Amino acid sequence: MVSGGDAHPIEQESYRIMRARVDFSRWPAGAREVVERMVHATADESFSETALVGDGFVAAAMSALKSDAAVVCDSRMVVAGVPLVASRIPVECYLDRVPTAASGTTRAAEAVQLAAAEHPDRAVWVVGNAPTALHRLVELYDAGVVSPAAVIGMPVGYVGASEAKAKLWESPLRAISVTNTGRRGGSAVAAAALNALARLAWY
Amino acid sequence: MVSGGDAHPIEQESYRIMRARVDFSRWPAGAREVVERMVHATADESFSETALVGDGFVAAAMSALKSDAAVVCDSRMVVAGVPLVASRIPVECYLDRVPTAASGTTRAAEAVQLAAAEHPDRAVWVVGNAPTALHRLVELYDAGVVSPAAVIGMPVGYVGASEAKAKLWESPLRAISVTNTGRRGGSAVAAAALNALARLAWY
Repeated sequence: MVSGGDAHPIEQESYRIMRARVDFSRWPAGAREVVERMVHATADESFSETALVGDGFVAAAMSALKSDAAVVCDSRMVVAGVPLVASRIPVECYLDRVPTAASGTTRAAEAVQLAAAEHPDRAVWVVGNAPTALHRLVELYDAGVVSPAAVIGMPVGYVGASEAKAKLWESPLRAISVTNTGRRGGSAVAAAALNALARLAWY
Repeated sequence: MVSGGDAHPIEQESYRIMRARVDFSRWPAGAREVVERMVHATADESFSETALVGDGFVAAAMSALKSDAAVVCDSRMVVAGVPLVASRIPVECYLDRVPTAASGTTRAAEAVQLAAAEHPDRAVWVVGNAPTALHRLVELYDAGVVSPAAVIGMPVGYVGASEAKAKLWESPLRAISVTNTGRRGGSAVAAAALNALARLAWY
């Protein structure tokens, strides 16, 4: 269980309060643990309404983590938010390898391109910041360049975030993805989804 | 200006959309840039309603940054979210120096205690995660152990976050603090406040 008997007392109390306020019963087991942790980490209860979890997402992501797949993140903040995952398997962010972006693109999109060349398959992809990173990931999947094991697609912001998440949800990647509708997202909620999966896979 | 002519076109467009949706006119200059960036970074417009900015906060924080004060953060995610600040002045997180917490306390609170011993004055303190870290910081201030230059106090969650932020706002630290009411907060919004100050101070 995500908040089992070994959790810190503050975490147990937090889950108790949260579950008294938010009804997670529509989610099947597995997806429920993921969405609960997304809300727990952010205290943003809107995620319980906006979250979208692909039918095969939890199984695919757990399988990848159990087989020591790499995790590719779009931002350093996501990496910083998953220390337990990073203590077991490679958790990488390629942003620092792209000092500047060419005209018409972004560093985040170029970093995805670079990461896809090194991780064409089996990686778990986590986008917690840049809409352009998620957009590029789906483009590369459509082009046959990359085949993710699972996708956590939760970019944030006023420009392109809703659209990139809709694009993910309209793609065949949907089955192995978690995302949400709307502008909200971010590194904390993306890291929370990955941390929930890690607990399901390893504990 | 926070989103001046040198900002990325996506950022300029994001600010344009945000300002058409949210009225920031009640905030004085300086505080306005901080609250705008908090909303921009998270797309969580509730921060425009819940934010609390001390009268002397912006001037105190800018002065500290300009005099190369250290920045002490409660979590690695905050550190990861402020690369431009960290490229100019020390940005530290003491959490890794506290492998386990004693009974009745938390690692985050013990890390604050450790950091306060090394930075008894002049540091800018940023709490983006743990309510217990902010609670301890105010206790240490009340005890005369630490005298922050400025405080960004935005912990998140169901247990203790509202209370720790209220405690900060009831303390004399209020004048040199930014915080908010309610459960929401987090590393992204805390980092955004610091990034806004850095732009005001240095650009």
